[in-house]
Amino acid sequence: MRNLLHIDSSVRGERSLSRRLSSLFIEQWLSRNPTDHVIRRDLSVESPPFITGKWIESAFTKPGTRSVEMNLALAASDQLISELENSDIIVIGSPMYNYGMPALLKAWVDQVIRVDRTFSFDLNRGDWPLEPMLAGKELVLITSSGEFGFSKGEIRHEMNHLHTHFQSISCYLGVEKTHHVQVEYQEFSDDRHKASYAIAHDNILSLVDRMSQVAQI
Amino acid sequence: MRNLLHIDSSVRGERSLSRRLSSLFIEQWLSRNPTDHVIRRDLSVESPPFITGKWIESAFTKPGTRSVEMNLALAASDQLISELENSDIIVIGSPMYNYGMPALLKAWVDQVIRVDRTFSFDLNRGDWPLEPMLAGKELVLITSSGEFGFSKGEIRHEMNHLHTHFQSISCYLGVEKTHHVQVEYQEFSDDRHKASYAIAHDNILSLVDRMSQVAQI
Repeated sequence: MRNLLHIDSSVRGERSLSRRLSSLFIEQWLSRNPTDHVIRRDLSVESPPFITGKWIESAFTKPGTRSVEMNLALAASDQLISELENSDIIVIGSPMYNYGMPALLKAWVDQVIRVDRTFSFDLNRGDWPLEPMLAGKELVLITSSGEFGFSKGEIRHEMNHLHTHFQSISCYLGVEKTHHVQVEYQEFSDDRHKASYAIAHDNILSLVDRMSQVAQI
Repeated sequence: MRNLLHIDSSVRGERSLSRRLSSLFIEQWLSRNPTDHVIRRDLSVESPPFITGKWIESAFTKPGTRSVEMNLALAASDQLISELENSDIIVIGSPMYNYGMPALLKAWVDQVIRVDRTFSFDLNRGDWPLEPMLAGKELVLITSSGEFGFSKGEIRHEMNHLHTHFQSISCYLGVEKTHHVQVEYQEFSDDRHKASYAIAHDNILSLVDRMSQVAQI
């Protein structure tokens, strides 16, 4: 049995394409792997709190010596990290807002990437003192953007701070393999958008197929 | 007389270096330009709300035809945009959290970049339908990072989703010129960090000097 963490961050509800496609992934996955379990985290329904000064102070205080107030400051983080720890596959639906992830999703990231929980820090490692503490997870990142050409070598690649940002942080989520599915051209509502959506839809189906086969070996 | 919009996004209060340096800029600026005015926006004191589905719906509804509820959904955005519109110089203090801007700052960005207020959208423009509506501002972006080597050609440049992100969105803030001052090596607390801070400190002083001279011409 595998655990899937299903995260959505679009605020557009049923109109959201990243949400529609992340749901498609989960639905198809469960039809192929009916005994697997899904942890649902819809950030638009329950917003993660912003981290605070107390949060940072608490994270850098040893667990046994934290005050009640400190434990409270980390409560949301504890919950979100435990969901992450318990997952084998992380499915994130994320629209591109202003060329990056929605603030809601960044708030989640800032809550779950935490010293001595998801990464360790040791200056004896020299110029690269951080190391991930979680491992073995796969990330399915499903993005939707109004414009297009954000992939490597394309016209807006330099403006892509969404997929590339996840490339930099995913190791601290315990991710060892990332699958990226994207819909582009949303604001053009034209044939290119329809084609992009159709390809993304098919990519989800074949991704479920491939990942399920590996999971069953 | 010029207006400065002074934004901080670190949650570390007095311990924050980006905050200390953004305050230094403002203090020095006012000593050189005492009749100028500062609009203060400390995001750690008053968090911007996350945008919502209602926010998007309202933003795409013509002003005269919005319901009371729609106007309420845009109230924070209206306020933050008016502060932006009224500014000539935007001073942003931003730590790097997980290789990008803090969620607090992304929440501010998502509130102020808004259709028909800070950018216009027209499909007649072809593949580049967005155009900025504000102009003539200068951005002073002051960043602080635990690690180092985030500049172009350096070892962690690919992991920089803070300064580079602002390069992609600043035009929609009306920014025509950006000055970037950075402190690095914060988590090493070593001589390299001290040197980095000292250089940033000096850069602020000379930046105030140069910008004040231009302002007085």
